[in-house]
Amino acid sequence: VAPEQGRRLAVIDLGSNSFRLVVFDVSPRGSWRRTDEIYETVRIGEGLGATGKLGEPAMERALHTLELYAHFCRSMRIDDVRPVATSAIRDAENRQDFLKRAEAATELPIRVLSGVEEGRYGYLAAVNSTTLADGLVLDLGGGSLQLVRVAGRISEQVDSWRLGAVRMTERFLPGDGKATKKALRSLRTHVRRELGRDKWVRGAGERMVGIGGTVRNLAAAAQHAAGVPDYGIQGFVLTAEALEELVAELAGRSVAERRSVAGIKPGRADVILAGALVVQTAMEVAGAEGIEATEAGLREGVFFEHLLAAEHPPLFGSVREASVHNLALIYHDDLAHPEHVARLALRLWDALGEAGAHPADPAERELLWAAAMLHDIGMAVDYDDHHKHSRYLIRSAAPAGFDPRERALLGQIVRYHRKGDPSLGEAAALARDGDDALVRRCTAILRVVENLERSRDQLVRDIDVRARNGRIELRLHSDGDDAVARWGAERQGPLFERAFGRELTLH
Amino acid sequence: VAPEQGRRLAVIDLGSNSFRLVVFDVSPRGSWRRTDEIYETVRIGEGLGATGKLGEPAMERALHTLELYAHFCRSMRIDDVRPVATSAIRDAENRQDFLKRAEAATELPIRVLSGVEEGRYGYLAAVNSTTLADGLVLDLGGGSLQLVRVAGRISEQVDSWRLGAVRMTERFLPGDGKATKKALRSLRTHVRRELGRDKWVRGAGERMVGIGGTVRNLAAAAQHAAGVPDYGIQGFVLTAEALEELVAELAGRSVAERRSVAGIKPGRADVILAGALVVQTAMEVAGAEGIEATEAGLREGVFFEHLLAAEHPPLFGSVREASVHNLALIYHDDLAHPEHVARLALRLWDALGEAGAHPADPAERELLWAAAMLHDIGMAVDYDDHHKHSRYLIRSAAPAGFDPRERALLGQIVRYHRKGDPSLGEAAALARDGDDALVRRCTAILRVVENLERSRDQLVRDIDVRARNGRIELRLHSDGDDAVARWGAERQGPLFERAFGRELTLH
Repeated sequence: VAPEQGRRLAVIDLGSNSFRLVVFDVSPRGSWRRTDEIYETVRIGEGLGATGKLGEPAMERALHTLELYAHFCRSMRIDDVRPVATSAIRDAENRQDFLKRAEAATELPIRVLSGVEEGRYGYLAAVNSTTLADGLVLDLGGGSLQLVRVAGRISEQVDSWRLGAVRMTERFLPGDGKATKKALRSLRTHVRRELGRDKWVRGAGERMVGIGGTVRNLAAAAQHAAGVPDYGIQGFVLTAEALEELVAELAGRSVAERRSVAGIKPGRADVILAGALVVQTAMEVAGAEGIEATEAGLREGVFFEHLLAAEHPPLFGSVREASVHNLALIYHDDLAHPEHVARLALRLWDALGEAGAHPADPAERELLWAAAMLHDIGMAVDYDDHHKHSRYLIRSAAPAGFDPRERALLGQIVRYHRKGDPSLGEAAALARDGDDALVRRCTAILRVVENLERSRDQLVRDIDVRARNGRIELRLHSDGDDAVARWGAERQGPLFERAFGRELTLH
Repeated sequence: VAPEQGRRLAVIDLGSNSFRLVVFDVSPRGSWRRTDEIYETVRIGEGLGATGKLGEPAMERALHTLELYAHFCRSMRIDDVRPVATSAIRDAENRQDFLKRAEAATELPIRVLSGVEEGRYGYLAAVNSTTLADGLVLDLGGGSLQLVRVAGRISEQVDSWRLGAVRMTERFLPGDGKATKKALRSLRTHVRRELGRDKWVRGAGERMVGIGGTVRNLAAAAQHAAGVPDYGIQGFVLTAEALEELVAELAGRSVAERRSVAGIKPGRADVILAGALVVQTAMEVAGAEGIEATEAGLREGVFFEHLLAAEHPPLFGSVREASVHNLALIYHDDLAHPEHVARLALRLWDALGEAGAHPADPAERELLWAAAMLHDIGMAVDYDDHHKHSRYLIRSAAPAGFDPRERALLGQIVRYHRKGDPSLGEAAALARDGDDALVRRCTAILRVVENLERSRDQLVRDIDVRARNGRIELRLHSDGDDAVARWGAERQGPLFERAFGRELTLH
């Protein structure tokens, strides 16, 4: 059933390794989410390297899968279906033959992306799911590698190379055994030479965002190796050192043994080493010390182009604001309460900053805003323990633009928005110096203003904050009897005092 | 904001120890849930034992709290507010004085429950949140103990005794030190004598359900002591042996030391031992070998009376069906898909039973039905990993009528409804012999029918199942092209064969 008056579209990604269908729903209120997905390992690129053509068995597998996807879209009544094909089909001599047969069998209008177009969708995915403003987007697929130089969030240069993980595996690391040093060297030299032809790549990647399964798997493996709690790989930075260790680890293992490396999906074990070497070499050439993983990819790029069609280019104004707002919309029928809590929380934080009661770090302000917007989303799960459910939802839905540490801190702040003594808890392993105090400050502010909004009707419409004689005085502007608000907020006095070293008084 | 065209009511429980306000919402579609709660330790019973009267400071605390609750209900625009008072207010000589002041200050029409009325609400809470048909409901509060004999789900006998946990503590176990053997013996003798006056109690409790904070805390403590994973205390059976160990443990500790017993809330540490002894003695007199905990209590009893006003008496036809249906309604906009999956799943399970492919245990059938109804509720959290989210929601929302083991099994079945090799996983510590095979069978059936319903539009409207030559043949009745359904269901063949030792074929 299609969302009432909303929109639904399906993107089909005909990749070299797998075909994937993803359904996106946009609600009438403008929130969006993925609502279905089918994944099928088709390996349409099988044998392509040797013959330059799509083989008949590979084409039949592909046609069968596409027919299924077409059936699926019809039975789900999805009219807006966008199939895009990438490297394998793009590069095959007999692609017209395949496309004709596919369109005859499915009536789906398959669009073959050029390398530059593919790169552009990777760019849209990266810049709409991270805070990247200046740097490089790396998009590594089975067939090709795309690099995009980004300045001021705008793509300045896009190129594509036939350096995909499957292609590099077939050429340099065939077989199931351990890799020889010579093979590794040859692969690196090849990548370096290919990328070196385009001078713009050299030194372009002070900050680098990575797209694709290779980067996601490497990030997950590095996260496992570091032993930090799993807050998802969105925004995780894979450092050059961690990648070097992973490459050494993978090179010393046979393909079968690579399957048991935590974080590497078994189906990717045969191509992960070549992929890791391509990423590593690209980072070296570009001068990047780390690469930031994102869950978004080509499919999200195609979707964002549609969702943000009114923007030129199709970018969110602020990724963090957009993703927090999207989650709040998904889990709340009405944003009046969280938006009011957020407004009051920032008002109090700003005044405390002016009074010198905290370091006035804008990153802390943004976390407080996000926590205030999301503190109650757990009510969608259950009223009881909804503070814990809010943390669970932040952890699983992983708002874009934040890294694992920031999501963990957000989780702790919402976890303690009702009761309990705030602490880093499970976020401790990801935290930096000062994060404990940050969580205590944000929690204390959230608890005070949440109680001012205890009746969730904006009865306390505004507050004035004054610092006097070492005390923080709160004056409430209320549209009625605010006894419940005062009663609740006053109870947060001791928590507030521990967080800011100032007494809180209400007037 | 009140739910559109739904109903909202608040119940205020003026207990001897604490006042609690709970808000219940009933949606236009008939689902219900708690949506808010305020708890305040008032101790209105303080000093009552000595003087027979409510003291002035206690009354002032109570009036202040009630005024806050009244403010809260007005600002939340809750018109239907039902305040009920129990033992302390009921038994106080000056209760009229208090009630006049309270009603003047708040305009709330406080209803003082008789012991029998209090017992009846405990009964409604117990029989609407467990599968109790015949046995005894024990409801232990701060001031009084209620026992209700239940036959065929109907209350046959209700009585109330002044044997509440606070009252017994003040009389037999005052002070903060360890309890003397003599004091324990005196308390037990007293309870035995009081209960012995009413001959109907003796031997009435083959099966016993317990209401109230004492029972909940003891169940949580026993669950901790047993080291089983925390699936909530709803339906947990506290055995006489486990209770005896807990009593010995608590009696050997001072009040301060009791606070650190896992499962016991610190605020209850002073009265938990007396409460445990009352429960234990009541079990002995009634001949109960265990007591089943439930989260529901007086407040839910008052709510159920309202929700089920059309039924006489106000009972759910089936607690399990009602609670599963309620959860499905809360998390789904439309039940067509889960209901169809449940129908097909039972059809397949029944046919497999007739073919001798499983033990045909009705309890397994009910779990399969519940898993089918709830398999997709995790979509309310996120599409990605929604199988894991469904397990999380089952674990946190804890559908009534199931015990922790059953909820853990349900969780594992929904966890594997999409992919992966089903296993007991975190349910292992709660499982019985044969549960592993049960989970595999239910998962295999759910996976097959979920794939038949892959397009969620009831395209495959029915199935015929035939056992022939050691194979299970599925014939689909479809209203259109069912290629996607066949493709998905056929992939579950190996899983099905491992679960049932029979090959699955589609026709």
